[in-house]
Order: sequence, then structure tokens, then C-alpha cells
Amino acid sequence: MEKTYQAIRFSEKLAKITDFWQPRVIAEMNDYQFKVVRIAGDFIWHDHPDTDETFIVLSGQLRIDFRDGAVSIGSGEMFVVPKGIEHKPYAETEVQLLLIEPRGVLNTGHAGGDRTAQNDVWV
Amino acid sequence: MEKTYQAIRFSEKLAKITDFWQPRVIAEMNDYQFKVVRIAGDFIWHDHPDTDETFIVLSGQLRIDFRDGAVSIGSGEMFVVPKGIEHKPYAETEVQLLLIEPRGVLNTGHAGGDRTAQNDVWV
Repeated sequence: MEKTYQAIRFSEKLAKITDFWQPRVIAEMNDYQFKVVRIAGDFIWHDHPDTDETFIVLSGQLRIDFRDGAVSIGSGEMFVVPKGIEHKPYAETEVQLLLIEPRGVLNTGHAGGDRTAQNDVWV
Repeated sequence: MEKTYQAIRFSEKLAKITDFWQPRVIAEMNDYQFKVVRIAGDFIWHDHPDTDETFIVLSGQLRIDFRDGAVSIGSGEMFVVPKGIEHKPYAETEVQLLLIEPRGVLNTGHAGGDRTAQNDVWV
């Protein structure tokens, strides 16, 4: 009998998320994870010393501030933040994101603090 | 002076591609590459023995056949083909894809043949 495999629908996963700034894992590729997250407002300055981090915007308009500038990322666009580069995401209104990064990366990098989300939570 | 960094727009990259089944690199994250590709029709059976491969559908409806079944992937959906699993992509009408896989992976895996695209070509 032929099996029917299921694709992962971003909107369906996001609809199950009620809290902001809490990335939820939806898939893995080798030792990398795909995470969806809803964000709104300001985050904290942080970096990831050991890895690049990919942002794909699914809806809304994301701004990422750097110490020397900024990038604006809209729906249907992506940006890779290089490892070790300090950044601060900002969303004037809600933004829905797909994040891609190695398993084990914390949302606040090495900055820590009360904005650190629980890691490796699936939706 | 503040620098303005540029996001990568999938549709803009795809608009520069005129040939089918020729993945073009648009970004790198660590040793992984993001590639956009336009496909239509049937591909060949192949697998990637050393790595998973991620398909994100940007437009159209993709079917991937496996030896024991199939998955249908639409716009706003993704699927990770596990390493070593034989698969054959099929698009009844044009599909535009974002592929994510380690640098150096060939589109035909170990199958080779005349459907093998030149690797590591950027757009």
C-alpha cells in the first residue's frame, strides 16, 4: 500500500502558537532545526558566536538592527546573520518567521536573561 | 554612517533564472547553501547518501515520489527528505522551490547522468 507522507504547513504550525518570542521546532535536517516563531516589539542585543542564523519572513516586516546598520526583511525574503555579529530583531507589528540554525542554539545566544526561551520545544 | 543591508528576495532571484532543473545558490549559512530552482515535469530517481535535503515550495504544487509512497507539497509548505531515501520530484506545472542542503550536494545525488546540473552556481 502506498504511504501518503505529510508536508509541514507553516501557517498550520503558527496557528498553534499563542505566545510571542518562543521559537517552536517544526522539522530537522541533519543537525539543523527549522523553527517558527511569532514576534512583536523589541528583542535584546545578542549574538551567536558559533553559528550563522537564517531568518525567513513568512508574514510581516522584520527589522534587524546591527551595530553598524540594519536590514529590513519582508514576506518572501531571507537574511543570514553571520556568526558573532551582534543583532537585535524588531517588529513594529507582528512578524511570523521561519528560523534555521543548528540544534541547541538559544534565542538569546550568549546574552542570557529573562528573554531566553526554552529550547528544543516542538509544535 | 549607518549601513543598509539587503535582504534576499526569492521572487527576484527566480526572475533571473530561465532554465529548469538548474539550482542556483542565493545564500550560505555555515556550510549549507540555499538554492532556488524552477522545475517542471519529471526528474530521475536518486538519493543523497550523506545528507538530508529540505524542500520549501515557493509557488506551485510539488510531488515527491518515494519507493513506498509520495508527498504533495504546496506553497507555504516544506518537507525534509531523509538521507539515503530514494526520491523523484515531479511537477505537473511549474514549481518554484527553495532547497537547503550542504554545500557540494549534486541535484542527482549519486545517480549522475545528463540531468546533473552544474553545482555551486550563484544567481
